[in-house]
Amino acid sequence: MPVNLPYPKSEDLLPVAGFALGHAEAGIKKPGRRDLLVMRFDTGASVAGVFTTNRFCAAPVTVSKRNLAAGRIGALVVNTGNANAGTGAPGMANAERMCAATAALLGLDAAQVLPFSTGVILEPLPIEKIEAALPAAVGALAEDNWFNAAHAIMTTDTQPKAMSLQGTVGGAAITITGISKGAGMIKPNMATMLGYIATDAAVAQPLLQSLVSEIADASFNAITIDGDTSTNDSFIVVATGKAAMAPIESADDARYAEFRALLLTVAVKLAQAIVRDGEGATKFITIAVEQGASREECRKVGYAIAHSPLVKTAFFASDPNLGRLLAAIGYAGITDLDVSKVELYLDDVHVATEGGRHPAYQEADGQRVMQQSEITVRVVLARGDAAATVYTCDLSHDYVSINADYRS
Amino acid sequence: MPVNLPYPKSEDLLPVAGFALGHAEAGIKKPGRRDLLVMRFDTGASVAGVFTTNRFCAAPVTVSKRNLAAGRIGALVVNTGNANAGTGAPGMANAERMCAATAALLGLDAAQVLPFSTGVILEPLPIEKIEAALPAAVGALAEDNWFNAAHAIMTTDTQPKAMSLQGTVGGAAITITGISKGAGMIKPNMATMLGYIATDAAVAQPLLQSLVSEIADASFNAITIDGDTSTNDSFIVVATGKAAMAPIESADDARYAEFRALLLTVAVKLAQAIVRDGEGATKFITIAVEQGASREECRKVGYAIAHSPLVKTAFFASDPNLGRLLAAIGYAGITDLDVSKVELYLDDVHVATEGGRHPAYQEADGQRVMQQSEITVRVVLARGDAAATVYTCDLSHDYVSINADYRS
Repeated sequence: MPVNLPYPKSEDLLPVAGFALGHAEAGIKKPGRRDLLVMRFDTGASVAGVFTTNRFCAAPVTVSKRNLAAGRIGALVVNTGNANAGTGAPGMANAERMCAATAALLGLDAAQVLPFSTGVILEPLPIEKIEAALPAAVGALAEDNWFNAAHAIMTTDTQPKAMSLQGTVGGAAITITGISKGAGMIKPNMATMLGYIATDAAVAQPLLQSLVSEIADASFNAITIDGDTSTNDSFIVVATGKAAMAPIESADDARYAEFRALLLTVAVKLAQAIVRDGEGATKFITIAVEQGASREECRKVGYAIAHSPLVKTAFFASDPNLGRLLAAIGYAGITDLDVSKVELYLDDVHVATEGGRHPAYQEADGQRVMQQSEITVRVVLARGDAAATVYTCDLSHDYVSINADYRS
Repeated sequence: MPVNLPYPKSEDLLPVAGFALGHAEAGIKKPGRRDLLVMRFDTGASVAGVFTTNRFCAAPVTVSKRNLAAGRIGALVVNTGNANAGTGAPGMANAERMCAATAALLGLDAAQVLPFSTGVILEPLPIEKIEAALPAAVGALAEDNWFNAAHAIMTTDTQPKAMSLQGTVGGAAITITGISKGAGMIKPNMATMLGYIATDAAVAQPLLQSLVSEIADASFNAITIDGDTSTNDSFIVVATGKAAMAPIESADDARYAEFRALLLTVAVKLAQAIVRDGEGATKFITIAVEQGASREECRKVGYAIAHSPLVKTAFFASDPNLGRLLAAIGYAGITDLDVSKVELYLDDVHVATEGGRHPAYQEADGQRVMQQSEITVRVVLARGDAAATVYTCDLSHDYVSINADYRS
């Protein structure tokens, strides 16, 4: 059961002018499941993305990065059920074939298509099944097809993740709609598994790229479920420019801040949705680290806590075994940390001070907070002005069950 | 159920001349459990140790490091059930009281005692219970009491870990006996939870200290269960010098290599015993990383694999979902890794080559190896001559159960 994640309603997902989505059932992993998605837009749209840093990155990631750099992208194509990662030279050839087949149906060059795959690693991509199903996906292209699209990118997700937001940029009404997927093999240091956001706002491509990198850092790069960095992580934003506005060309444009705030809201919600639907998750944990000497050391502390199986199982058990939090802070890698100055809070409860338990701390207070489904851990390092926030979930029996059974 | 870890027999644990052990039931966590241990030896013994690098290190670790540096140690005292970590200034005072009470009973100065605690973090040490039980522990001091001692340091361990080895050093017969404990919050980068080894060999203290640091790196620092670095990790070696031999004073002494080999054997076995009895462990995994540019990068790859919950759950499920191994290698942090040169083996099965699955690999071969209780993952990086080995276990439902229930 996802943690406080409303099931999206089809009617709440607003079409983005100039951005159409079409799904199909390719039967890649099992029959009768939406597992193929094509997204189509004018080649004049601005497209920006960030990708996994995993050295064993998937073939489609390599192809997408290359094609994106060349520009004039007109379509995205996504399959689930097979990651096309750890597949060597044949995997690269299959990723190219996926582009070529999509391009042929849409009247594009193969280099104008970005391919994405997600699923099992180290198995050959069944490219024939994808090629056979692509005409159906292209036939289904429609701007009001976000609900099916959100389904078509799911793997172990228990529900689709999607949201829309409308706002104004310099007085012009714009729409932003996005979808994301991922529930395991989720760790920071790049994007998530898959996140796609489209907007009709007009934003110059270089500006959009720098904005997407920045926003990824505060959204998809701030989440972790199991510390495993996927081979396929990708986060793509397409700005079709169909809204009634002149393009935003510079960060100095007053409209940039407005657009940035709207896009950040959607990206953070979609990233958090992945954690809320994390494999086996029963709790949504926000770890806010403050007063660090650098953002990097704040992130280190946040991830040490977020990746500790002992901390995660304590959250699962609603057990205020909070010494485990101190241990994680202590081994996070800040070698000159003065632990006597560290303050630890669980929501409003002051847990630790002066290297030990806070005198006013009562087990009942810790217990009360631990029983909630949403918990904020706040760590004050007292070393500077930097801060960072990490979002994670607990570690439950279901995480083990899901990952022990994934392929079988 | 520990993985291929024979239950030690009392008669197999050989006394070490000049090293006596006494246990008691202090009722720290629950009544009727051996939870206090005193170890006594002449102050002329050589004592060496390595300790956790966790910044929230326990009060007894701070006191032990200080006292060890001052020299002329005559006793070790260990309690389980409470870690005396995250306890601030009162915790320091309690660690000192533990030394003083032990010293008073043994006719030593408080500074000649090394204190150790293991158990729950962030709770005050019940020092009165320890003081009350110390006379019983001292009364039980005997050289043939290793079996009880191994029990007295257990926490979530399912069985005691102990072993003895006899050998010759320059023709002189020596005995080495050791005990260890720890089953969760086990991660490298220092010692294990607790490991104590005694020998009657005669070795000068400075040489023993450098040897212990070196050996820790290949034994207690090469194991990981959950990636959580404890606040209390300590590994201590005491050489009483009662064997019929002149002291080894230099690494150039031909006897040094003989002694080193014997001590390493015991340390590795005791360290592996911790992994074999890892919380919820059903498999013992050796990760051998070869042909790295440095030992450090080999360790990075080893730990990335060993800490991946996805890899660990696949081992638990005996599922040859081996793409997860490639993903972990890919995110281990070697930013210039050429994945097309990486070779991956599961025991004798060649799994991956040239960035993808080995042409001869068959699922049935992977399945066969994954069903074993002992598995070796071998990664060849093809970048240099360095190597490193990491020992770990799988991640099972029982790990979650044990850590969700630890305090309750």
